[in-house]
Amino acid sequence: MLTGKLSSYSSAYGELMKIDAFAFLKEVQAHPEQFKKGKVVLVTAATPLKASRGEGKTTTTIALIDALRQRGIDAAAVLRQPSMGITAAGSKGGASGGGKSTLSHPEIADWGLTGEMARIADAQNLLVAFCEKAVDDGILSEVLIPRVSETPSRSLRSVKTDGGKLAERFVLTPASEMMQIVVLSRSVDEIAQRIGNMTAGLAPETGKPVLVKEFVDIERIVRVIGNAVDPAYMESSEGSPVYIHCGPFGNVSLGIPGLVAVDMACALHDVVVVEAGYGADAGGQKWLDIAAREYGAQWPAAAVVVTRATTWQDDPALQWRYPFAVNRLEALGIPSFPMINLWEGEDDELPALRQTAATLGFREPIAGNLWRDGGAGLASQLDAFIEAVSAADSDARPESKSGEDFLDTVRWVAEKAYSVPADRVIEKDGFASILAAEKDRAAALGIDFDSLAVLAVKSPATMTDNDALPESERTVTLKKVEMHTGAGVVHINLTTSLTTPMPKIV
Amino acid sequence: MLTGKLSSYSSAYGELMKIDAFAFLKEVQAHPEQFKKGKVVLVTAATPLKASRGEGKTTTTIALIDALRQRGIDAAAVLRQPSMGITAAGSKGGASGGGKSTLSHPEIADWGLTGEMARIADAQNLLVAFCEKAVDDGILSEVLIPRVSETPSRSLRSVKTDGGKLAERFVLTPASEMMQIVVLSRSVDEIAQRIGNMTAGLAPETGKPVLVKEFVDIERIVRVIGNAVDPAYMESSEGSPVYIHCGPFGNVSLGIPGLVAVDMACALHDVVVVEAGYGADAGGQKWLDIAAREYGAQWPAAAVVVTRATTWQDDPALQWRYPFAVNRLEALGIPSFPMINLWEGEDDELPALRQTAATLGFREPIAGNLWRDGGAGLASQLDAFIEAVSAADSDARPESKSGEDFLDTVRWVAEKAYSVPADRVIEKDGFASILAAEKDRAAALGIDFDSLAVLAVKSPATMTDNDALPESERTVTLKKVEMHTGAGVVHINLTTSLTTPMPKIV
Repeated sequence: MLTGKLSSYSSAYGELMKIDAFAFLKEVQAHPEQFKKGKVVLVTAATPLKASRGEGKTTTTIALIDALRQRGIDAAAVLRQPSMGITAAGSKGGASGGGKSTLSHPEIADWGLTGEMARIADAQNLLVAFCEKAVDDGILSEVLIPRVSETPSRSLRSVKTDGGKLAERFVLTPASEMMQIVVLSRSVDEIAQRIGNMTAGLAPETGKPVLVKEFVDIERIVRVIGNAVDPAYMESSEGSPVYIHCGPFGNVSLGIPGLVAVDMACALHDVVVVEAGYGADAGGQKWLDIAAREYGAQWPAAAVVVTRATTWQDDPALQWRYPFAVNRLEALGIPSFPMINLWEGEDDELPALRQTAATLGFREPIAGNLWRDGGAGLASQLDAFIEAVSAADSDARPESKSGEDFLDTVRWVAEKAYSVPADRVIEKDGFASILAAEKDRAAALGIDFDSLAVLAVKSPATMTDNDALPESERTVTLKKVEMHTGAGVVHINLTTSLTTPMPKIV
Repeated sequence: MLTGKLSSYSSAYGELMKIDAFAFLKEVQAHPEQFKKGKVVLVTAATPLKASRGEGKTTTTIALIDALRQRGIDAAAVLRQPSMGITAAGSKGGASGGGKSTLSHPEIADWGLTGEMARIADAQNLLVAFCEKAVDDGILSEVLIPRVSETPSRSLRSVKTDGGKLAERFVLTPASEMMQIVVLSRSVDEIAQRIGNMTAGLAPETGKPVLVKEFVDIERIVRVIGNAVDPAYMESSEGSPVYIHCGPFGNVSLGIPGLVAVDMACALHDVVVVEAGYGADAGGQKWLDIAAREYGAQWPAAAVVVTRATTWQDDPALQWRYPFAVNRLEALGIPSFPMINLWEGEDDELPALRQTAATLGFREPIAGNLWRDGGAGLASQLDAFIEAVSAADSDARPESKSGEDFLDTVRWVAEKAYSVPADRVIEKDGFASILAAEKDRAAALGIDFDSLAVLAVKSPATMTDNDALPESERTVTLKKVEMHTGAGVVHINLTTSLTTPMPKIV
């Protein structure tokens, strides 16, 4: 045991636990009657005014479970692993809530001690090392898997390695295919299978795509990931259960926590509040249209759409975005509650904000200064929310889009999630040939291109080419397509975005 | 609290604790009378026959503390953080011992869940990002801080970033200056100060070296490291206390655990067994000649020099290396005990090995199959060892070499630690001008070059240019010099080595 003299210097770390969710879920599948069947609540937001500024989704998620538990409901939260690139190094605070609505030890998550970010990076980088060996061995002429880094660094977008001979690129770890694979997989076998199905590169002479499994011992990659990718168990400062697992970066990747973590939480709790990153158009859209439609995740029983007073009201040209997000979710049959996250000095704005919500036909907002008051400030406001969650059918399953024409699905996403009707989806010069080439690669691998889940890539702070234009003039422009054959998704760039290390450290 | 249904899936992680050693040591300094003053025992080895094959230093370290505790002595171990590049991805096993002489949960260390490797990488990479911004801002024309990666990858030794415009390189995270800084620093303030004193690059026009502190907000870098660099507390499978902290790669960097971790363990236990990496010529030499002579670490009360039967006996041309290591330590006044780590099927070789030890005038070896029998097999053999440790003067302080001529110190290291007398230390063509240039940089920064600690860089499996030559013909060849102005060391390449990502994944 830890010696007494040290105990007062170690408290901050005593509460990190990692759970073997993959093994646990096997038990749940074998004996479902012994476990709960909790309902998923999605916490999302309007597109933020600035990429670097959070609306308070994590803060809301934690305050909400604290408030629900005060109401006697067994609620838990599932958060994403914070990214160092944005949190510690960036201009944003941590990604573990704040004030009274935070984790008991946010530094564990913020410092990456939950471990999966580093191991996912190591695993994908090791894969690239194997690909380079394959270049030496004449198996590949070009490496298509990017290296990954958590560090924002402009110059890594395009590099020449090996003294300038081999073209490579880096993407941010949270946006990597390895991260997507861990987020979407329900078992270690599935992780291994998906890694094997990643496209490693192109073969010499034929130029045909080559899969990882054709030359890599997948077991060595899986060993590097190890159980580091198990969800972490932590607690809010009020003692509510919080699971943390993978998946930040909703605008350029999935932006949702690992599906195993959510499945596990649903087997243990009655209400599971899931944070989906950036906005309703980013991580929110991906929970609905990728996780739920294509990967069997639960359709939300309700949604909470977070806004700050400034986001909603300050820029008249962008005011449409918040109501659009709420109305879109309601149109999908998801009871959606505005959550007004007040900052210091904003309490007086609440009556006007409630009036605006009423004018817009919204449900009665839940509101509070979550940083200052925590969940206690919300508990009395949750009657309608609890009623809606109770009434929801947790067996509802949305329609899959798999098999529908890729471009039709892209236009459908643009219309439903971005407010841009199909006829205003523009193709940039050269896009058609990029798409044709990617379809050819799919065909060469025997993959049905239209069966891949469509993953929209967008800038963090915008939804269209110019959000300040009137609705009738808004467009999105299709720029780039990139298959992730392991994760089973195809990226489509709708607005300007950087999956790659960020433009410049600030 | 963790729900009952989950507890059986989380046991593997329950025991990781990180200790705020920096804060703890302040208390020790304020009230030394309330703490122990443990003695340091160094576990080192002969140079291994192959770089990829361990002799069993970690296994020995753990078996030794288990055995000492069976004898009623309060012993603890301080291990280095395993490196993914060698362990999980490499051909070697883990770096957490093995069999009965292992950690209760080795996977925590092997998976990097102790956290410092990833955070040290992030911190140094973030520094490079700031340097690139400095290039844009006209502060630097060349970046001298390498990026770091834990992944062995041949091609990263020399890269061109930014689409081919900016020359950069990668080194392995354990060999990075940031890792050295954390290993050698006794306080967070010292870490910050040393980061600030790292040489960022060269100024445009003047070509003068520029320090990090001239343009980087050091606080942001320190924040990224955070308390992730606190030592981890773990236990052997027998329940003995084990601290893990930083520092692998004794041949190309320090190869010793963080000094704070050792200081802390000495304040809490009577005997502190410190593992020093690779061989007596690598991490062992660096504990003695860098940590103890220059950075105030304790001079060992005793040493245990691990060998396997095959290492000692199989290659006649290399048989000199093991006795050389033992005799060198004895010559320094350190009672040095041969430790014969038997593998399965080698028990019968023990009488012959004991005879050889006697012939060589060694102390009576401690021997056992540590994997199979653990510390129990050693407890009865420790009388002479315990007596030697008890008799040692823990206040002994070795002479500093600081201020002596750099090349004299290099020749002294070659003679004392590598068996190559001063007149057989050769300078490779061009070395003199490389050295002169580095000295000029030191002068431009106002640094006394001869005050920097000399850090020998060598290949993992050799001690000289050709170890198979007879003693009178052995040489080392000085190839390269590289200052780490933050860590306060100057690297000198003695034999062929790769601080950079490894030649090729195998």
